[in-house]
Amino acid sequence: VSTTIACLLYPGLTALDAVGPLQVMSGLERSDPEFSVVTVAATQGEAIASDAGVRLVASHQYADVPDPDVLVVPGGMVGTMRALTDPELLSYVRQAATSARWIASVCTGSLLLGAAGVLEGRRATSHWIFRHVLRELGAVPVAERWVRDGHVITSAGVSAGIDMAFDLVTRLSDRSAAVTISQMLEYDPQPPVRRSEWFVPSDDVNTARCRDLLLELMAPSPLRDRLTAS
Amino acid sequence: VSTTIACLLYPGLTALDAVGPLQVMSGLERSDPEFSVVTVAATQGEAIASDAGVRLVASHQYADVPDPDVLVVPGGMVGTMRALTDPELLSYVRQAATSARWIASVCTGSLLLGAAGVLEGRRATSHWIFRHVLRELGAVPVAERWVRDGHVITSAGVSAGIDMAFDLVTRLSDRSAAVTISQMLEYDPQPPVRRSEWFVPSDDVNTARCRDLLLELMAPSPLRDRLTAS
Repeated sequence: VSTTIACLLYPGLTALDAVGPLQVMSGLERSDPEFSVVTVAATQGEAIASDAGVRLVASHQYADVPDPDVLVVPGGMVGTMRALTDPELLSYVRQAATSARWIASVCTGSLLLGAAGVLEGRRATSHWIFRHVLRELGAVPVAERWVRDGHVITSAGVSAGIDMAFDLVTRLSDRSAAVTISQMLEYDPQPPVRRSEWFVPSDDVNTARCRDLLLELMAPSPLRDRLTAS
Repeated sequence: VSTTIACLLYPGLTALDAVGPLQVMSGLERSDPEFSVVTVAATQGEAIASDAGVRLVASHQYADVPDPDVLVVPGGMVGTMRALTDPELLSYVRQAATSARWIASVCTGSLLLGAAGVLEGRRATSHWIFRHVLRELGAVPVAERWVRDGHVITSAGVSAGIDMAFDLVTRLSDRSAAVTISQMLEYDPQPPVRRSEWFVPSDDVNTARCRDLLLELMAPSPLRDRLTAS
């Protein structure tokens, strides 16, 4: 193995933020022994609560994978806001970002990248409700499904991590790998609900109603103070 | 709580088959205390290997949730073929199917429904490579993203479970719940690879090449003997 793809796990994460990209990347591992897909948490073997009725157990702890080639940072709601004050987690992300070929986030995982100092001056995205908060972390918020700036790739809310992971597969291997994995996962989505039924235009996000929701979700977070002060 | 939505976990499952629907259904739980989303396995608390670099821990064991209102059965490759010979698992599925309002499968999870006797005479689907095998289990194979026949809903490969789960949300609650959850998960997929690049027409699936792949994947399965005999 010479390319290690790691996904960070932490309490309260959104399960699909991690498992979507993990499933796509695991297709690479299956077809090419060059790749290894692992999960990394503060403590190896511990069952980590997610927000979806299932707990997740990482294959490794931080010290085992100090310099992954790729690090994917999932998001979440209250769990992610708590993680913003976890110095060990932020230090792991900061360290990995200095050596990784690609550092990626899904949903509010980009807030963790920002808190670790990885997004300074970079174009980035996040879950639509949180996107404009990236500015408080030094980033330039962009309303796209996923955004690449240098070696940093951030994606929009939850399900966007799957699309981003296919893009990463193409960059790590080639387009034919992405085609094969699409075929194995039958990735031909047929959403029963169309985007037009729920889409909130960028200009409408930073309204009082969204701000209240945001502050409620951010209750345990230091970002909350920055936002209420600004 | 009066509606329990359970997802079965077993060794070697495809992680996204379980976590996709779990994440969608958890949106129901978050907005309405009527719903509870749980995971069920033979042994509660045990870390169960998946095919995606992460282990999963179920919140409950079979005896805790004998009659869920909804049961989702995920698929996988070798792990699922092994599960076809697990009498305790098949008995749990058979029992749940008699009382559940909805019994659902993702990907090759439909082979488990078939082995449990739930698909007899029903229209059903599965991962495209395995779809025609459903006939050996008494079902009528259908090439659709997801198929409903009575209270049984089967879906195609891996990612199809997410689309199916949104349909289930509408049936369990209403369309507005599916819209809200689509918004929270930003379910507006933008696949980097189009279906036309990998789609295998139904008539081409049951060829010698596919059959070899199938028999290889089915190595530990009793279905293999049926197929090689037929």
